[in-house]
Amino acid sequence: MKMVSVNRCFDGVQGVYTAPSKVCGGDMTFGLFLPAEAQDGPVPVLWFLSGLTCTHENAMTKAGAQIWAAEQGIALVFPDTSPRGGTVANDEAYDLGQGAGFYVNATQNPWAPHFQMWDYITEELPNVLAKNFSVDTDRQSIMGHSMGGHGALTIAMNLPDRYRSVSAFAPIAHPSQSEWGRKQLTAYLGKDEASWAKHDATLLMRDVGFNGPLLIDQGTEDQFLDLLKPEALAEAMFARRQAGVLRMQKGYDHSYYMISTFMEEHIALHAEALYQ
Amino acid sequence: MKMVSVNRCFDGVQGVYTAPSKVCGGDMTFGLFLPAEAQDGPVPVLWFLSGLTCTHENAMTKAGAQIWAAEQGIALVFPDTSPRGGTVANDEAYDLGQGAGFYVNATQNPWAPHFQMWDYITEELPNVLAKNFSVDTDRQSIMGHSMGGHGALTIAMNLPDRYRSVSAFAPIAHPSQSEWGRKQLTAYLGKDEASWAKHDATLLMRDVGFNGPLLIDQGTEDQFLDLLKPEALAEAMFARRQAGVLRMQKGYDHSYYMISTFMEEHIALHAEALYQ
Repeated sequence: MKMVSVNRCFDGVQGVYTAPSKVCGGDMTFGLFLPAEAQDGPVPVLWFLSGLTCTHENAMTKAGAQIWAAEQGIALVFPDTSPRGGTVANDEAYDLGQGAGFYVNATQNPWAPHFQMWDYITEELPNVLAKNFSVDTDRQSIMGHSMGGHGALTIAMNLPDRYRSVSAFAPIAHPSQSEWGRKQLTAYLGKDEASWAKHDATLLMRDVGFNGPLLIDQGTEDQFLDLLKPEALAEAMFARRQAGVLRMQKGYDHSYYMISTFMEEHIALHAEALYQ
Repeated sequence: MKMVSVNRCFDGVQGVYTAPSKVCGGDMTFGLFLPAEAQDGPVPVLWFLSGLTCTHENAMTKAGAQIWAAEQGIALVFPDTSPRGGTVANDEAYDLGQGAGFYVNATQNPWAPHFQMWDYITEELPNVLAKNFSVDTDRQSIMGHSMGGHGALTIAMNLPDRYRSVSAFAPIAHPSQSEWGRKQLTAYLGKDEASWAKHDATLLMRDVGFNGPLLIDQGTEDQFLDLLKPEALAEAMFARRQAGVLRMQKGYDHSYYMISTFMEEHIALHAEALYQ
């Protein structure tokens, strides 16, 4: 593992590291914020999964999350959104290939050899963190934005008891019925839509739900609302009687300005679950 | 108008009054909490509409609202849920007739002569308040529980600019598709479902929405969830991109214990709208 950078940040350390990934077949870069408390022993871990076109860097620099994670004594992980570089496949479109891993294990070529983001996020990177840093992977929570909100919700619902709480900003809520989803799930998983079901938050909400605190924020002025389909997830959540909070925030759009505005409340929710 | 009782309460006064109602053709009783600030000039008004079987008294004694209204300097009105007594029609069922006015103007007999709760709540009682008490009817907000949540949401959406904010606890969210609704709307308004549309929060959310803060709390252990249909309103709200907050509260049921638990946050929401 290689340290790319470390910066002092809210009495803790914001680091960037590159580690070889077996599942993705190449080096993968991630950001990790460790609060001051990590010097005294392992701290809980909160994942932030980013959206289309993002690297590990976007949320790390723009989400305004470190101040609240420092206050709560929580580590933040900022993974990349796909494998990159070298022989990794790509597409001209911004929403397929590099920067658009969709948090699945691709089964179709040319994506299958590297695009194993599900295993990377849920298995390999947690082990890298536990082995190299003062983090307690028995206490994990997860959040994300847009494609990363999709990732957070689907991963959390698929792995009961792994994550104590889940939250999302403007998630892609029903990808099997959206152009942000059908295209990518077809490319990565093939045309058999049965294989998509575990990667659709609305379908998972109907089937299994989530046992823990859940919070979703969505802006009314989000330019991608028709692709995100929050109404489908809202219906499924209330039909299931899933505990949680859905908020439609007046005037906010799809940007990191929206994320940073509500980050304090998201991290407070996760902190309560992680330290209970 | 007759004063039934007054009690000192959180530095203000909780009163109960009976006033002749022209629209309901008889005396109607209501509760009114005035905070200490009302002595210095008119204060904003927050309505609490109650559910099936309730009188003016249930929320007044069990919702724990006065402490927060006193803190915020807001008057609380607790109307009855139907006309009562004398020649007023009734039904053996708990959910039709007296105690079950559903906040509509009945057009069908035997209900039409007295069951004019829409006009009573939106026109007559506000005038009684403005004439007799230190309240500012230019600043009104509205909330309610169950049938009263239905009333609050439908009245607020039908009268844009009248109410600055709206909230509900476990509202009957889609009465035109529920046994809590179809029976009563048929009895009061007749079989033409077109006349029901303005009395269904989900249909109104699809058509017009609400321009102001909106908050709905629903308990996961509510014994009437199948009748309330929050999933229909959730879908309509998010499909409309209606600003607001929906919360599914884990472990809470349909009782006033649920209402009192979240009352502080509801009144805070209304206070911000009423004093902005």
